[in-house]
Amino acid sequence: MIKTISILGVTGSIGTQSLDIIKKNPEHFKLGAISAGRNLAKLNEILTDFQPPLVSVQDRDTLKELQSKYPHIEFTSGEEGLLAVAEFNSDLLLTAILGSVGLRPTLAAIDAGTDIALANKETLVAAGDLVMERAREKNVQIIPVDSEHSALFQCLKGENEKEISSLIITASGGSFRDLSRDELGSVTLKDALNHPNWSMGQKITIDSATMMNKGFEVIEAKHLFDVEVSEIKTLLHKESIIHSMVEFIDNSIMAQLGNSDMRTAIQYAFTHPERLYKDNPLSLNELSQLNFKPMDFDRFKMLKFAYDALEAGGTLPTVMNAANEYAVGEFLQGRIKFLEIEEIVEARMLQHENIQNPDLETILSLDARYKSNMR
Amino acid sequence: MIKTISILGVTGSIGTQSLDIIKKNPEHFKLGAISAGRNLAKLNEILTDFQPPLVSVQDRDTLKELQSKYPHIEFTSGEEGLLAVAEFNSDLLLTAILGSVGLRPTLAAIDAGTDIALANKETLVAAGDLVMERAREKNVQIIPVDSEHSALFQCLKGENEKEISSLIITASGGSFRDLSRDELGSVTLKDALNHPNWSMGQKITIDSATMMNKGFEVIEAKHLFDVEVSEIKTLLHKESIIHSMVEFIDNSIMAQLGNSDMRTAIQYAFTHPERLYKDNPLSLNELSQLNFKPMDFDRFKMLKFAYDALEAGGTLPTVMNAANEYAVGEFLQGRIKFLEIEEIVEARMLQHENIQNPDLETILSLDARYKSNMR
Repeated sequence: MIKTISILGVTGSIGTQSLDIIKKNPEHFKLGAISAGRNLAKLNEILTDFQPPLVSVQDRDTLKELQSKYPHIEFTSGEEGLLAVAEFNSDLLLTAILGSVGLRPTLAAIDAGTDIALANKETLVAAGDLVMERAREKNVQIIPVDSEHSALFQCLKGENEKEISSLIITASGGSFRDLSRDELGSVTLKDALNHPNWSMGQKITIDSATMMNKGFEVIEAKHLFDVEVSEIKTLLHKESIIHSMVEFIDNSIMAQLGNSDMRTAIQYAFTHPERLYKDNPLSLNELSQLNFKPMDFDRFKMLKFAYDALEAGGTLPTVMNAANEYAVGEFLQGRIKFLEIEEIVEARMLQHENIQNPDLETILSLDARYKSNMR
Repeated sequence: MIKTISILGVTGSIGTQSLDIIKKNPEHFKLGAISAGRNLAKLNEILTDFQPPLVSVQDRDTLKELQSKYPHIEFTSGEEGLLAVAEFNSDLLLTAILGSVGLRPTLAAIDAGTDIALANKETLVAAGDLVMERAREKNVQIIPVDSEHSALFQCLKGENEKEISSLIITASGGSFRDLSRDELGSVTLKDALNHPNWSMGQKITIDSATMMNKGFEVIEAKHLFDVEVSEIKTLLHKESIIHSMVEFIDNSIMAQLGNSDMRTAIQYAFTHPERLYKDNPLSLNELSQLNFKPMDFDRFKMLKFAYDALEAGGTLPTVMNAANEYAVGEFLQGRIKFLEIEEIVEARMLQHENIQNPDLETILSLDARYKSNMR
């Protein structure tokens, strides 16, 4: 059977790697509807290559321009366009779009009964309870694309979630893993963007350096695998070869390993529960030494914030995420120093009055407020 | 449901650790029939502790002595006794007996439809084709107890064997892993018996030092998981924390980790596909560094012999195993030097005229001949 895969956020890092997988395996996958943001050069390449049936762009001007250039493709735009892509008749929707703008379309796809390959952080970080409850109601699978969660998902294949003792999420430590807190005071944007293992977008590379990204992963893992917060552990592992592990009640630990190629996890989200041939295996000769260190929550305060937010529940994770997005934006524009990111996030979290069981409107309005720093 | 577990070779290392698991979990396991060899002190302890319904001992004198001491237990002896234990009405037979004497009883249990928890090396090394064919016919499960095969078995849980790219069996390197071939010339029996990671019987500790044991594991893996010989790799990993791995066609590698506690694998063989709480987990603080090195077939010639024997098939693995048993016996009695073990095995293998598709009689007679060195 050929699976039709639609993609929200097709021009980004995950989006383009997904297209690579689809292109290499025409007997297994077909591209459905797609959405793109500002990268029109990349979108033009994609349209020439794939001829997708439905394409959503950000604004109506772009829509008109592309429509005249590609008369056989249907175009749409704006939030309405994202919903149309999400509701397109697909076997799987890959949500590789950045930010909380992915929330409504993801819920729309769930309502339409379409399985989700999840690469949008906000879905579970900002609205985990709401999304997972809806997915259970609609019997929709949420399949992780992140390499850590894909690892946990694979470790749990054939296993009983009741027999989990702990999820062990590994963390490379990001660009500054070898620096002390004192040394972090003077790091530059350029240093921060230089991740040792993974080639990713700017925002996530900064979130790796602050360890906020690992915090998001802890929150996502809680929602994906329905374990207690105390059962989610993190472990420093600088080589990023073991992508994560699951410890079971009988002391057996299952781990998933591989090289730093996001396409392995993306492809598994597409083929699960089956596997499909892929080139570029980890050479066993690359496997010479794997190092592990206990997580240091004093050094990586943002990870501690994430555990706190997860324990508190309600709207606190939403606020943490939005405040972080604001602060990282400021850092990327050179307006604040690296350590100010966590100062801002901490201040916003302390200031927020938590609301339990928020609805989507509450989540989206808090997200908008804290992202724009209009406290 | 309480599983009745019978045990061939109850007084050995695997046997006594199994009893420990049964004793700790009376709501899950009950001891069925057992067989013991020469360790009567240990057997007496067991009989006091467990009151098993049927007990097989080596000879009729022992039988009479024990019968008068434990009038409520039924005793039997000799090869007939082993068969009675194997055919006892159990949910699982643990074959922890040493040597080819385990072959007939294992086949008898398979014929009786009893699943096997396999800890007897000869079963698959000397008679793999025959045993696996019989097990398939009778729809009997052969569940590995060895930590490496248990790891592979767990990595394959929920997976499709057709999607295996390779099995990666890890090897600690045994007592002499840091010595060169030149230095091996003068090692002593005492040195050889000092395994760095695992506490095991004498024979298997020597087999670890020569890497013959890893060769047996390669042969067993071939039969258990039905892969090509070329798909079985070995990797030096001195910490023995990763017990083995499976690489799939999509480049994803699953690994099973844990401390060097045989009880994890034994218990999993008892509970599979479920898991049961067990104390003594691997502390994540113990996980600081894992080292890997490509296997060196010039340094560890015995492993190469095993691959050769497996490729050749027929009776060559049987002969290799029996010649090794003879040679290790000579070494344990101080009659030959360490490196003479491999010289003897190599000579016997070269000398043997291979017979394809041997029946049980052929296997047992070759085994007896090469074990006693009556070439």
